[in-house]
Amino acid sequence: MPPLELLSYAGLVVFAASGAIAAAERKHTIVEFMFFATVTAVGGGTVRDLLIDAPVFWVAGNGPLGTCVVTALLVWLLGERVWNARILVWLDACGLVAFAVLGAAKTLALGFPALVAVAMGVLTGTFGGIVRDVLANRPSILLGREIYVTATIVSAGLFVLLSRMGLASMPAGIIGVSAGFALRGGALVFGWTLPGYRDLNANESSPG
Amino acid sequence: MPPLELLSYAGLVVFAASGAIAAAERKHTIVEFMFFATVTAVGGGTVRDLLIDAPVFWVAGNGPLGTCVVTALLVWLLGERVWNARILVWLDACGLVAFAVLGAAKTLALGFPALVAVAMGVLTGTFGGIVRDVLANRPSILLGREIYVTATIVSAGLFVLLSRMGLASMPAGIIGVSAGFALRGGALVFGWTLPGYRDLNANESSPG
Amino acid sequence: MPPLELLSYAGLVVFAASGAIAAAERKHTIVEFMFFATVTAVGGGTVRDLLIDAPVFWVAGNGPLGTCVVTALLVWLLGERVWNARILVWLDACGLVAFAVLGAAKTLALGFPALVAVAMGVLTGTFGGIVRDVLANRPSILLGREIYVTATIVSAGLFVLLSRMGLASMPAGIIGVSAGFALRGGALVFGWTLPGYRDLNANESSPG
Repeated sequence: MPPLELLSYAGLVVFAASGAIAAAERKHTIVEFMFFATVTAVGGGTVRDLLIDAPVFWVAGNGPLGTCVVTALLVWLLGERVWNARILVWLDACGLVAFAVLGAAKTLALGFPALVAVAMGVLTGTFGGIVRDVLANRPSILLGREIYVTATIVSAGLFVLLSRMGLASMPAGIIGVSAGFALRGGALVFGWTLPGYRDLNANESSPG
Repeated sequence: MPPLELLSYAGLVVFAASGAIAAAERKHTIVEFMFFATVTAVGGGTVRDLLIDAPVFWVAGNGPLGTCVVTALLVWLLGERVWNARILVWLDACGLVAFAVLGAAKTLALGFPALVAVAMGVLTGTFGGIVRDVLANRPSILLGREIYVTATIVSAGLFVLLSRMGLASMPAGIIGVSAGFALRGGALVFGWTLPGYRDLNANESSPG
Repeated sequence: MPPLELLSYAGLVVFAASGAIAAAERKHTIVEFMFFATVTAVGGGTVRDLLIDAPVFWVAGNGPLGTCVVTALLVWLLGERVWNARILVWLDACGLVAFAVLGAAKTLALGFPALVAVAMGVLTGTFGGIVRDVLANRPSILLGREIYVTATIVSAGLFVLLSRMGLASMPAGIIGVSAGFALRGGALVFGWTLPGYRDLNANESSPG
């Protein structure tokens, strides 16, 4: 399996697990485990492929869907022994930035302009998780100030910038993934957040 | 009209009615009646067609949209005399499994693999109702343990399995629809549910 | 720039601003400002293009996305001095009916039937705002009785009707935009609402 496809499957497993865990938190059944796992894992890439008019990446074979279903089954069987572990948030961070770079790379390779490639990277990395949260009635990561979307912008943006400057895909991808992961990791370890709108505003307008 | 198309229109009417009723529960206007009816009825098939890159089934003619609008009008005019009736839940069950088999059949006929066809069946049967619930701010059927998605898995799964084993579409479809409907019907009559995650887990981990 | 494209960019700016303001209300960061602005501004046209199998309007160049990002930045920088102003609701009303006519015109020009063109006009005008509200956890405009969707039906419907009667695009568009804007404006000034379902029903069934 080529490295990019391997990375893509790794991302599927990670996001499918996070979807299944969202289902676990609400006492869902095995069917919802599979449903949430699949939506979370393939959601971002699906929207990207629809928007850039590429064949949707998971409809040509049984592999991606099978991966999601098996991952959901494993989360169901292994249970809390595994998913309570803090390791998952870190796997999620890996998947987030990996999908961001993969999404930007695919879009750029098809000849779309730079800003569109960055947007597709952001979508590929974040969309599945957003839908997962809406369906599970959880407060969306979008409504917090945690650095999450920002990490995908950094990953996809750096990859696109470096590619446009002539760097090969592999080093550009490694740099993009590393930078985004460092940022997301810093947010997880040190609680980094971006400043919110009203905070800034309050600072400006209330000198007292 | 051929039987499959007839079944498809019957499903549209049923789901459109359920969408209009969701609007009715919240004192909505006639415009929202039409909006909810249409989204619920065509939502699942629309997503399926986008994913398998088929022309979206309702954009070629005025028939499907017209059906939704007229159904919404009828629900508005007939009012509670009709929609309070328990018959609607049963019509919804018919539509659910019929759309599941129709979705799987269309996907299989276009040459996609088995697991993808099952997934498309599930999507075709359930997506419209999911969007309806999100828009209407209702607790999604996805968050309950009622047998709903499961019925579409059984219907679409049996159809795909039997088709792959060489059975003709008509008997495979009848068996798929019947099995899924029996399961959903049993859930409605006897309150069948799937076990939730924590229940199982609690049983395993707390012997006292 | 031709008049239709100019109108389209004006609509993008208006909707992007409304998305950024939804983010501002919740103390979001600059990243969410850009995210909400973009989703709100391009959401409706994106769904329309997917459904009628046209290339998605914003992926061919950097212009539309760049417009959204810059608008979000301006809202962030200018702050409450601008967006508290009542003028925004009026700009939103302009965008709503302009997008409705633009969406219907594009669909009709590609040879789709009348009812489909009206539906696409409604989607183009309203979808972005619906997604914005779902993501921002706000009560959807769909759940109120304010005249909003109705204005897009009037705008798109009049345009399609007049076009089918042989009127040229420009006068048909001006009439459609004006009628929808007058209706939406009346709703804003005079609080016009459509009657809700239970109200009517209560009048009918409770003579006391």
